[in-house]
Amino acid sequence: MDLKEYIREVKDFPKKGISYKDITPLLQDPEAMKYTVNLFMAGLKGKKIDKVVGIESRGFFFATLLAERLDAGFIPVRKPGKLPYITHKETYELEYGTDTLEIHEDAIKKGEKVLLHDDVLATGGTALATCKLIEKCGGEIVQCNFLVELGFLKGREKLKNYEVKSLLDYL
Amino acid sequence: MDLKEYIREVKDFPKKGISYKDITPLLQDPEAMKYTVNLFMAGLKGKKIDKVVGIESRGFFFATLLAERLDAGFIPVRKPGKLPYITHKETYELEYGTDTLEIHEDAIKKGEKVLLHDDVLATGGTALATCKLIEKCGGEIVQCNFLVELGFLKGREKLKNYEVKSLLDYL
Repeated sequence: MDLKEYIREVKDFPKKGISYKDITPLLQDPEAMKYTVNLFMAGLKGKKIDKVVGIESRGFFFATLLAERLDAGFIPVRKPGKLPYITHKETYELEYGTDTLEIHEDAIKKGEKVLLHDDVLATGGTALATCKLIEKCGGEIVQCNFLVELGFLKGREKLKNYEVKSLLDYL
Repeated sequence: MDLKEYIREVKDFPKKGISYKDITPLLQDPEAMKYTVNLFMAGLKGKKIDKVVGIESRGFFFATLLAERLDAGFIPVRKPGKLPYITHKETYELEYGTDTLEIHEDAIKKGEKVLLHDDVLATGGTALATCKLIEKCGGEIVQCNFLVELGFLKGREKLKNYEVKSLLDYL
């Protein structure tokens, strides 16, 4: 199965010049979903994971499925003001301005093995901020895991201290 | 297992006077997650589902898990401007002002059997707007399915044309 056939490229979204990778055709196909989760699991073989962290909001799609397969807890990392309990916060730079992500401070226990998941690795800013949040909780990052990697944006360089895996690379 | 033990009530969130039902303690417990999905499945026994629609963004958590179990496709309903392809839109009234939800117009085929899922049924405005989106696509709503129901807000009345099931009622 060629998963790239299930990724729709939408030109000029969200702004001119960007070819957006729309994963919704994959999500609506149960066979393609199963195949994707199996590929993720193959890339985690033999690894013990206590918590799967999904990044708001497209990271949630596969993070809960991976958590179930790994018999791990699921932890959402969210945009500011969405998580109701006490949080750790991490602010990171965007092309213009900054953005912030939050995690519940009791989401991960010290020493727990954590899988980070998001749908797309672009510049790596969001993922790196999430790594820092996981470490603030005392978690150990086992792998940063993505469905799509926009290789030309070199997000992997920003995550050089972590093991990074993606299923589909767009160079 | 008493699932209410896994729901944390956070006082005065997001604003004074509201007791917010925080489902993150449930999400981070693999046994409680499994138990929850099993309860949802028991409430769908014998029903054929083609697509599971999850509402942004806390509806995504269980919608993908249910889609996998039901061997159905997963469809995200999202806030304006998030879905990249051609969408149907539905605007609905809030206490102050309005809100809009979108679905990809090719997400559901005419006659497909659809399960709507969200984490919380409150006033029912979001769920009703989502029902209309599903019907604009030609889908048939089999059940509207929630983890938590805030019974005192009477959202069920707004959804009186549909079968509504929730696991945890707060009167």
